[in-house]
Amino acid sequence: MKSLDTVTFLSDFGGGWGYVAACEATIARISPGVRLFHMSHDIPVGDVAAAALVLARIAPLYPEAVHLAVVDPGVGTLRRPLALSTARGDFLVGPDNGLLLEVAAALGGLASGWTLDMKKVRSIAGLPSEGTSTTFHGRDLFAPASALLATGVEPRSLGDPLDPGSLVRLPPALAKFVDEGIYAGVTEIDRFGNIGLGLPFADLSRAGGVNGAFLIEVPRATAPERTARMVQTYGELASGELGLLRDSWAQTAIVLKGASAAEALGLSRGVMIMLKPVGKVHS
Amino acid sequence: MKSLDTVTFLSDFGGGWGYVAACEATIARISPGVRLFHMSHDIPVGDVAAAALVLARIAPLYPEAVHLAVVDPGVGTLRRPLALSTARGDFLVGPDNGLLLEVAAALGGLASGWTLDMKKVRSIAGLPSEGTSTTFHGRDLFAPASALLATGVEPRSLGDPLDPGSLVRLPPALAKFVDEGIYAGVTEIDRFGNIGLGLPFADLSRAGGVNGAFLIEVPRATAPERTARMVQTYGELASGELGLLRDSWAQTAIVLKGASAAEALGLSRGVMIMLKPVGKVHS
Amino acid sequence: MKSLDTVTFLSDFGGGWGYVAACEATIARISPGVRLFHMSHDIPVGDVAAAALVLARIAPLYPEAVHLAVVDPGVGTLRRPLALSTARGDFLVGPDNGLLLEVAAALGGLASGWTLDMKKVRSIAGLPSEGTSTTFHGRDLFAPASALLATGVEPRSLGDPLDPGSLVRLPPALAKFVDEGIYAGVTEIDRFGNIGLGLPFADLSRAGGVNGAFLIEVPRATAPERTARMVQTYGELASGELGLLRDSWAQTAIVLKGASAAEALGLSRGVMIMLKPVGKVHS
Repeated sequence: MKSLDTVTFLSDFGGGWGYVAACEATIARISPGVRLFHMSHDIPVGDVAAAALVLARIAPLYPEAVHLAVVDPGVGTLRRPLALSTARGDFLVGPDNGLLLEVAAALGGLASGWTLDMKKVRSIAGLPSEGTSTTFHGRDLFAPASALLATGVEPRSLGDPLDPGSLVRLPPALAKFVDEGIYAGVTEIDRFGNIGLGLPFADLSRAGGVNGAFLIEVPRATAPERTARMVQTYGELASGELGLLRDSWAQTAIVLKGASAAEALGLSRGVMIMLKPVGKVHS
Repeated sequence: MKSLDTVTFLSDFGGGWGYVAACEATIARISPGVRLFHMSHDIPVGDVAAAALVLARIAPLYPEAVHLAVVDPGVGTLRRPLALSTARGDFLVGPDNGLLLEVAAALGGLASGWTLDMKKVRSIAGLPSEGTSTTFHGRDLFAPASALLATGVEPRSLGDPLDPGSLVRLPPALAKFVDEGIYAGVTEIDRFGNIGLGLPFADLSRAGGVNGAFLIEVPRATAPERTARMVQTYGELASGELGLLRDSWAQTAIVLKGASAAEALGLSRGVMIMLKPVGKVHS
Repeated sequence: MKSLDTVTFLSDFGGGWGYVAACEATIARISPGVRLFHMSHDIPVGDVAAAALVLARIAPLYPEAVHLAVVDPGVGTLRRPLALSTARGDFLVGPDNGLLLEVAAALGGLASGWTLDMKKVRSIAGLPSEGTSTTFHGRDLFAPASALLATGVEPRSLGDPLDPGSLVRLPPALAKFVDEGIYAGVTEIDRFGNIGLGLPFADLSRAGGVNGAFLIEVPRATAPERTARMVQTYGELASGELGLLRDSWAQTAIVLKGASAAEALGLSRGVMIMLKPVGKVHS
């Protein structure tokens, strides 16, 4: 088995209490030569869909690696612990809750899958099998498995093969085109207050109204309806003006020049909004 | 002296203003071959006991290393700067305020200790002795000392030996068993709102009431008393139900299915609570 | 061209959504042998002056490196993307908005400069020239350019030389000495609530009143005027007492023993305050 020698690591652990460090330390003890990249540890707590989105965007930018991802509200229950391989040559390690399938597709597609066996993993890693927790599989199972896969250990020695058709899938978050406009979900609120939508910008362009202007309807909005227009860059907007931009991932973002669009519109992750073309003549 | 080539780093510096980077940069200049692991930099500000807890849990998971720890409300005063060696072969570097003793015990016990001498450390590190601060010994003293120890410099060349009996100790945070139940302190509120107690889960089990249920008494609680029952995993709890769980460190945690237990009970670090077995027949 | 093999990275991206990781991954793909140091990613959003301050303080502590800095409110507009070289032998990569000039001075002075050409950079880096964004030049342009410069690629192959006199400069944030006292700006509020001023401590000393005491006047203060006295260390202050301290960068900091000075005085970054010597006899 080829030795990738690289692990990337995403979680919702945050930084404070050393949970990230516990996993990194475990990997360094088992496989000292492995290089670890931190992808993010500030995923919103328990938000598997947000984690899947970040993972699918970022993992393909790295060289081939073992991508360790732990956002795992079901830790300790019967949900399966997974190792998956991808067509590009990466491995994906994490819980069977939908977290790993979007990124598998982004890495050329799912090749094979295995259910990790705690006993086998820890034995090969040289760790004691007693004293493991039901609350921290990141440290006790997923990090050790990632450390082993990164150094070329065969995944079939870590558990049984599984049927890819049996994997848990997240509901797709697709935009919906109706007569009046487009329903789209808020997938991301970034640090700048930009609102990411699950809507390819190319699709928005096709639905555009006069001058690319759209009315933004927010459910139960406390603020009045607002208009936003399609622009190429922040720079085209006047201060305080809302824009619709092709974001860094070719999706649509609602942005506000010099301030937080999310605050201005009172929007948060997961909310569905409607975009209505302004002055569009129905064809 | 053996060259460990590895430094771990814990502080309460946070990320924003480059204080962590100033220390890491200093280490990289003095000892370019050293590998640095960030353990945590989001320890609650000035909370030496929280830092000592994280350090004692996480440091043993790493390979042998120099563990640099800077939570140092007394910086600039007469408190001594320390380098300690442990039976496992690690070094501990930080202030003499109790921070380093719990982790020394977790690493096989304290072997020897030295008081760091700013002049000697900086001279061997090739740094100017003038221009140092009274506010940032992390950058000016502790990071340079760690960089040197990691490459095999003898600790006795960095300062005078000290009497381990003279080291400052933190008051122990032990649970107390009384007739009505158990007094235990809140040692950790994690990102998920789980409440960590300074109470080994095995001890709680021995005190268990009917069905392992306990009444949780919070001092000056604004919320009504709540019952929690002992469970093996989050998965056994109903939504909104409180549980008592063996946490990732074999201690007791109060958890709430799908929400923050800390918010529900209005608890924060350092508070003492009482756990009363429900329906327990006094034997 | 010498190969520095080291990149430091500062931004205002925060941790959550993988923007930092996207840049790091890109560098690792282009130049796998490069070592990356994270300087800070929690610069206040869009605060170019704060970023310039941190960069100028921390970059000189590292070995010679490519310093990648992305705080870029003008991304996608005509502001130029830059690579600068310094007398010490470092490279600086980032937008032409004033971010890079203070650190250039701290690294021995600006040597030469180039305007980065997206097409050239991506072609040499082996990246496709289509599909780039107007919103994320960190990933699409600055990180690739940094990866190339770190491995010895000549800057002139990445863009055209520029006239250093044409670079955008930030207004200087100097303290002003008047008859009644000193006007100084708040440059930093750190995690401990210490208030950093753009005022060398040596200058304050020369203006000192009786016993080094100063009245602190805050514009539109809701709290009453407060007195602070010059001290060498936190340890000299009584609990609740305000002090004026030589901070870790030889500037003046207002500190409060055991609490947040910024909260007590209601101060935030950018505010101008006045320090009036107490009981000073005009000479």
